[in-house]
Amino acid sequence: MSQPDPKRVKTDDDAPYELIYWPVIPGRGEFVRLVFEEASVPYSDVAQNTEKGMNAVKSLTSTDNIGDEHNPPALAPPALKHGDLLISQTPNILLYVAPRVGLAPKEGNGVYHLNEIVLTILDGLVNELHDTHHPIAVSLYYEDQKEESKKKSQYFIKERLPKYFKYMQRVLDAKTSGEGPWLYGDSLTYADLVLFQAVDGTKFAFPKSTEALKKSGEYDGVFKLYDAVKERPNISNYLQSDRRRKYSEGIWRYYPELEEE
Amino acid sequence: MSQPDPKRVKTDDDAPYELIYWPVIPGRGEFVRLVFEEASVPYSDVAQNTEKGMNAVKSLTSTDNIGDEHNPPALAPPALKHGDLLISQTPNILLYVAPRVGLAPKEGNGVYHLNEIVLTILDGLVNELHDTHHPIAVSLYYEDQKEESKKKSQYFIKERLPKYFKYMQRVLDAKTSGEGPWLYGDSLTYADLVLFQAVDGTKFAFPKSTEALKKSGEYDGVFKLYDAVKERPNISNYLQSDRRRKYSEGIWRYYPELEEE
Repeated sequence: MSQPDPKRVKTDDDAPYELIYWPVIPGRGEFVRLVFEEASVPYSDVAQNTEKGMNAVKSLTSTDNIGDEHNPPALAPPALKHGDLLISQTPNILLYVAPRVGLAPKEGNGVYHLNEIVLTILDGLVNELHDTHHPIAVSLYYEDQKEESKKKSQYFIKERLPKYFKYMQRVLDAKTSGEGPWLYGDSLTYADLVLFQAVDGTKFAFPKSTEALKKSGEYDGVFKLYDAVKERPNISNYLQSDRRRKYSEGIWRYYPELEEE
Repeated sequence: MSQPDPKRVKTDDDAPYELIYWPVIPGRGEFVRLVFEEASVPYSDVAQNTEKGMNAVKSLTSTDNIGDEHNPPALAPPALKHGDLLISQTPNILLYVAPRVGLAPKEGNGVYHLNEIVLTILDGLVNELHDTHHPIAVSLYYEDQKEESKKKSQYFIKERLPKYFKYMQRVLDAKTSGEGPWLYGDSLTYADLVLFQAVDGTKFAFPKSTEALKKSGEYDGVFKLYDAVKERPNISNYLQSDRRRKYSEGIWRYYPELEEE
């Protein structure tokens, strides 16, 4: 029998969307949830059940996982199941879902601009913020790399945070950002939801530094967009629901000592 | 006059491809070059001229860059110009180019699997390797974060390198990898070129550790794929040409002390 041709994996557009992510923390799963919530598209979320969620993530991340006949193995959550298709990597999941739920153009090259903005925020602001509390190794506790965390955080606050806020503001100042508060074009896209979550997590982890950025008045567009997303009816409902996890561990952690002068 | 609609930016498929990247080092630009070289698709490369290349990158990365009427500003190179379109972020450029030059499927969901594999290699193996010599701040010299680099490298060699090699081997062991040596399906895709460059850079930066991985016999598929890419006529010609930069600074650097026991 010949090999199945994975290039032809098709999905039934009516198939349910199933998110696989760690229970308890918001983490990277949050970027995916916000897209479904804003679009009012039903999705299941294994993280809603702690035991089921842990088991699903453990099975996904097991080194015994060699995928199935339709899908290569994923290395880490979040992953999304849609019919026979299983895909991972946050920006990849967003790229797949957003055009299907009306939060990115289905045609033309706009999606490459959106993907560019999203990759810059996720790869830059989000990953670097994570590394402020884990600069040496993810396998070590924060307590065992505290000194290096403090050192990295000083540079993060002084150089990297303004760099990324300036970048986001420049995208908003560009001609490709339309009349409204949005990053790209005249209506909300998934890039705006990514910015919202990245800024929200940064506010939690580095509240004083984020407040200082706000007070500088140099990034008014970024904070205006943050507020505009937060006030969207579906997002506002979601944020008040118990589907929204509280910050604790994971990417966005609050260690006040990392912000001290 | 109304806002131009950036969602409708179109490109002329016959327009020339123009790569904007730092001169002198191979760096992330290499992932893009390999795609054009393998596909025998002409492209211009500002890095071929040191002064022109430096100016192009400086203009791209300037904080005064707010894009143009078709494109939002990029934060960092590599960037690719194709007609009126300018896009940045390595995996995004690859995602745009590969289906156009026959190195990824044009239809179906296979491209999301390829993007997933590529993001995992770039975000994981490549970015983490970079951070072994810059764990505290990119603005500091290596010499000023040498102690932390040594510490991070120990974990990188012991935990992260095997993790990513194991992941790549699992993708090769999956049913979605066809009969040949390739990661996905029965023919070479851009993901194979990304694996090649990631492994090649790792060999340069951590030669002893990469040799140990090879000798373990646990990742034979990865090294077989590496060799298969290297022997492709177009790639072989390219690697011997002066278009291929020598490793020096940038992501892949050789600091022997980082590998010492």
